[in-house]
Amino acid sequence: CISQDIDHILETQSALAVDLGGTNLRVAIVSMRGKIVRKYTQSNPKTFEARMQLMLKMCADAMQDTVSLNCRILGVGVSTGGRVNPQEGVVLHSTKLIQEWSSVDLRTPISDALHLPVWIDNDGNCAALAERKFGHGKGVENFVTVITGTGIGGGIIHHNELVHGSTFCAAELGHIMVSLEGPECSCGSTGCIEAYASGLALQREAKRLHDEDQLKVDGLDMKLTEPITAAHLINAARLGNSKADAVLNKASTALGIGIINILHIVNPTLVILSGVLASYYQAPVKRIILERALDSAQKIEVVTTDLEEPALLGAASMVLDYATRRLY
Amino acid sequence: CISQDIDHILETQSALAVDLGGTNLRVAIVSMRGKIVRKYTQSNPKTFEARMQLMLKMCADAMQDTVSLNCRILGVGVSTGGRVNPQEGVVLHSTKLIQEWSSVDLRTPISDALHLPVWIDNDGNCAALAERKFGHGKGVENFVTVITGTGIGGGIIHHNELVHGSTFCAAELGHIMVSLEGPECSCGSTGCIEAYASGLALQREAKRLHDEDQLKVDGLDMKLTEPITAAHLINAARLGNSKADAVLNKASTALGIGIINILHIVNPTLVILSGVLASYYQAPVKRIILERALDSAQKIEVVTTDLEEPALLGAASMVLDYATRRLY
Ligand SMILES: [Ca+2]
Ligand SMILES: [Ca+2]
Ligand SMILES: [Zn+2]
Ligand SMILES: [Zn+2]
Repeated sequence: CISQDIDHILETQSALAVDLGGTNLRVAIVSMRGKIVRKYTQSNPKTFEARMQLMLKMCADAMQDTVSLNCRILGVGVSTGGRVNPQEGVVLHSTKLIQEWSSVDLRTPISDALHLPVWIDNDGNCAALAERKFGHGKGVENFVTVITGTGIGGGIIHHNELVHGSTFCAAELGHIMVSLEGPECSCGSTGCIEAYASGLALQREAKRLHDEDQLKVDGLDMKLTEPITAAHLINAARLGNSKADAVLNKASTALGIGIINILHIVNPTLVILSGVLASYYQAPVKRIILERALDSAQKIEVVTTDLEEPALLGAASMVLDYATRRLY
Repeated sequence: CISQDIDHILETQSALAVDLGGTNLRVAIVSMRGKIVRKYTQSNPKTFEARMQLMLKMCADAMQDTVSLNCRILGVGVSTGGRVNPQEGVVLHSTKLIQEWSSVDLRTPISDALHLPVWIDNDGNCAALAERKFGHGKGVENFVTVITGTGIGGGIIHHNELVHGSTFCAAELGHIMVSLEGPECSCGSTGCIEAYASGLALQREAKRLHDEDQLKVDGLDMKLTEPITAAHLINAARLGNSKADAVLNKASTALGIGIINILHIVNPTLVILSGVLASYYQAPVKRIILERALDSAQKIEVVTTDLEEPALLGAASMVLDYATRRLY
């Protein structure tokens, strides 16, 4: 019967999703229903050559597995850090978080190797696509997602579509600046919210406090041995370490003000936080909006994602939404 | 002949434009070609009652004049400070720059008095509409206009349309924050670019320097008597007053970073500066973009408007573009 046929299609038709991040290189087989059927993770190599080679090998290995998994792959969706031209399938430029990653044509080598259509966008935009298809953004005309992980990224949905901007530099939310000076950022500027509130920024501050012997506090059950991370800072603050608390307050204020700037520019109805720090930042961001946003922007909802893998799911969604139309 | 008929239509069919600003209340008769046929200026009363009364009287007087001017008025376009719901024709909320100006239905009383359709939007959005119809924004799919006058406002055109946002709070560009603390703003927050770089902010700093006896400098040909204004500050800086220069540098940096935040969020191809301080700010804003924006955002053009009255022309353009369609 037809409904069984449809079930079968939804379960077997799949996308190959690739996520090129500051830390890891990941590949996943994602079904049309948004289920991650299998996932492969390696650390992302530091050089262009090694990265391309590993990515193609991981894709080929995954394609091999699809036969026994009974998955038909419709295409490849790639999420990557950096600015991307999705029409051309090219990474235009990346910050230092991914080295040797400028003017890289990703579509041609992947398509040549796998004989499949290839879609590419940056990780923030992919996360927004994932929220639109599978997450809190379903049916929401105007929303923003902000990813607070190693770095900070994001994507903007306006009138149900991604805002790419005229040079594919829209929604570079990590590089919203909230200080005339402020800490140095991976982009070469200073005062970006990524330099205040990302995982790397908090780790930098945690290490600084640790070096000054100011991170330890009674009750801290994490070992103060390397690597010192943002988690040490958050735990220390919860246990009453006022220096750690001050660092986190500043980070939260910076992130909150950055998000208010988004509200005062595109005024969405919903902000979706994702990334490892999302649940930590949700409450302070709400508080700062109440303190400092215009009255008319106060109605915004701030939620945390319920998707496990926004970047991979968004990469897959480009394939699943467009595969029958072949629209880049 | 038809072309003469069309010429006649373009010259006689007109809009009544109203501009409610922090300082003045203005009314103008604007022809379909964008010519200001006649303009009326009064200071904007400080109370709601007086303001409404004066606005209706100025509109009625202008309508009287249209007979002898041979102008047929198609409708009324209103530009005002504050957040506006253009569908309802209501001013939702305004900062302290215009007092007693929240939850004000402007459409009903004007329409009742003049028996004409009425369009309303805020001054920044009107300026963007004016640029789209008559100015540098003609045919540009994605651009932003930033008005640096008494306050700071602006409007965003994305895919040829205004971005209003979900609660009509988009493009509140004056309240982009570029500091975790920073000077107090008329909106109740701190660190907004309006609090650093508007005419009022520069006047505040000029007065402060004057009170400290630090504004005067050899060669200054403006009298240092009240009112001390932004112009005194700019002149003093040009004559080598380093304190005045430092104030202006900070203001320019704040404005430049605010504009970069717009680039990193919506990434337009063009920024159009208008308002009395536009020509002063053009060069430093360009410089700060080169210093601090992402590579991918560097291609932006920054120009100053060549329109004399963006707010009035934009108010008129709502009438001229929509009068035959009656679309609010
Ligand atoms: Ca992005
Ligand atoms: Ca505006
Ligand atoms: Zn940055
Ligand atoms: Zn403000």
